[in-house]
Amino acid sequence: MSLYQTVSVDLGDRSYPIIIGRGLLGGNFDLADYVRGTDCFVVSNETVAPLYLDKLRPNLAGRNVASFSLPDGESFKSVATMQTILDELLASGANRDTTVIALGGGVVGDIAGFAAACFMRGVAFIQVPTTLLAQVDSSVGGKTGVNHEKGKNLIGAFHQPRLVLIDTDTLDTLPVREFRAGLAEVIKYGAICDPAFFTWLESNMSGLLEKDPKLLAYAIQRSCELKAEVVAGDERETGRRAILNFGHTFGHAIERCLGYGEWLHGEAVAAGMIMAADLSGITAADLARLKGLVGAAGLPTEAPAIAGDRWLEAMGMDKKIRQKQLRFVLLRALGEAYLSADYDGARLEALIGAGA
Amino acid sequence: MSLYQTVSVDLGDRSYPIIIGRGLLGGNFDLADYVRGTDCFVVSNETVAPLYLDKLRPNLAGRNVASFSLPDGESFKSVATMQTILDELLASGANRDTTVIALGGGVVGDIAGFAAACFMRGVAFIQVPTTLLAQVDSSVGGKTGVNHEKGKNLIGAFHQPRLVLIDTDTLDTLPVREFRAGLAEVIKYGAICDPAFFTWLESNMSGLLEKDPKLLAYAIQRSCELKAEVVAGDERETGRRAILNFGHTFGHAIERCLGYGEWLHGEAVAAGMIMAADLSGITAADLARLKGLVGAAGLPTEAPAIAGDRWLEAMGMDKKIRQKQLRFVLLRALGEAYLSADYDGARLEALIGAGA
Repeated sequence: MSLYQTVSVDLGDRSYPIIIGRGLLGGNFDLADYVRGTDCFVVSNETVAPLYLDKLRPNLAGRNVASFSLPDGESFKSVATMQTILDELLASGANRDTTVIALGGGVVGDIAGFAAACFMRGVAFIQVPTTLLAQVDSSVGGKTGVNHEKGKNLIGAFHQPRLVLIDTDTLDTLPVREFRAGLAEVIKYGAICDPAFFTWLESNMSGLLEKDPKLLAYAIQRSCELKAEVVAGDERETGRRAILNFGHTFGHAIERCLGYGEWLHGEAVAAGMIMAADLSGITAADLARLKGLVGAAGLPTEAPAIAGDRWLEAMGMDKKIRQKQLRFVLLRALGEAYLSADYDGARLEALIGAGA
Repeated sequence: MSLYQTVSVDLGDRSYPIIIGRGLLGGNFDLADYVRGTDCFVVSNETVAPLYLDKLRPNLAGRNVASFSLPDGESFKSVATMQTILDELLASGANRDTTVIALGGGVVGDIAGFAAACFMRGVAFIQVPTTLLAQVDSSVGGKTGVNHEKGKNLIGAFHQPRLVLIDTDTLDTLPVREFRAGLAEVIKYGAICDPAFFTWLESNMSGLLEKDPKLLAYAIQRSCELKAEVVAGDERETGRRAILNFGHTFGHAIERCLGYGEWLHGEAVAAGMIMAADLSGITAADLARLKGLVGAAGLPTEAPAIAGDRWLEAMGMDKKIRQKQLRFVLLRALGEAYLSADYDGARLEALIGAGA
């Protein structure tokens, strides 16, 4: 029951393992080595906590476990919720040796991680992601934060976890729409840096959609390996790490224009990746393969109707702006991404339907 | 006019200089090398901005300078004010390449630094401290943060500045009570790690109180050197850096019990140092020298009347707690501090007037 794979994130004295396997909750993976003090504080949400909080407790035998559940949803990923978590931490008697554990999806992980980063200037943090998106993306790499009305993740910190514990059985309870949204980030890794993985995904997408355990474990493991590799080379995103944002400039704009939550993040990224690939000027064959794989995952291949000036305004707040010049993650070919401000302006205008 | 001393804070790729001198504001020190992008955002307060904001502008020639002034006072060092600063940063069009500049005392520096740490997961930050306390202590070392109703600095981050620019002429406008409060931290450095500096302070306290420029420059420089040395050895306070908190466990409790602002931080630390020295069991002669120097600086040598149980409650929230065991910074002798949970409980009870 407790066989698992380990992926290492190599960041010097901030290195940590990602443990991936089935049946890891319920005490099959002892968290003792990763909980420094006697106290843990689990942050979860009202959907996930009833399903998995009691399953997590046996992994924390001998520790004091306090917990707090947020309401479910991206709209609660705010400074206000963050302050509530800090209030609850203090009310529980938490101290510098308390370990904060995020049990849930990306929203829970991002906000719990940011709370851990800021509580007493930083306490230990463990990620237990329960959505595919969080397992392959947001739980790895140390980005934490909350949204601002002007944009997503505008307020946050880099704060690496001590451990990421991925029990793939948690995906059994994940709604299919969210599962598919997570596949968008899996596809992204193939598209930006691993053509062989992209090909593997083309061959195995139907099995993944059926949640075949072996295929799923491999897809998660490979995604984590690729993310770990990129993050290890550029922890604070001063350069290459930005390629992980492939599709995200357009994707974030879609989320902003529709209102957060209308499209899931992965859905917006899916359509955004195809726009970014199109802007890149890759071959029609490569573009067709990307569209094909995104479509096979049941994800949108086209952006919703948004006016050109709203696109530009929404993209104007994107964090990848430098000196007011838009920068995009583009593809030389499938599996080879780069960050550039040198793109075809006319093609961009055509893509977003803006006037010349 | 622009002669200055440089103290280096050696933190690998986060190293930075502290520039100390007279007449540095007004363009006599060009900030161009330390402002990465085209945009600066100056955070100040309603007392300091009218005095020094226009003086700072010539140091930033050729840059876009936006600014925001907080109300003056420790009570504004809150998550709510922090959020206002983040709102203002976004409203000004700030981006990842914006440099946040703190112009003011410790409150401004701590909150502006925390905003810089969290804005887009961290932007460049410069400290221009205008109080003695900020010049010798809070502007150096990267501690940033805000208060919580349960205690001071409970929410924050480590975020090193790229530069600390100390124009000692700003002390001309500093109220005498605040100037003396700053001297408490200067005395602290001598008491914890430099007996020769302590002796120098005993010989020169009257000249310092008259703000003799040469004495003042040396006292600030030596304080910064000592702090830089301790911080370089333990950036994130996992060990020795804690000695910088000498007198602060008692001091923070005094501030909490009286209500923040009733006693200035330095005043509370002054009385706290004498309590901590007493708890240490150093010789009566050493204790008398510390009391003498604190008194000569016009600082309180005794804590205000606080009931024993309020002391304990107030100290219970101190961040130096580990495993619920109180730890204090104690002295082996003047100039030699250490962190320990091994103190004389009866002596502590006697000091705070708690029942046995």
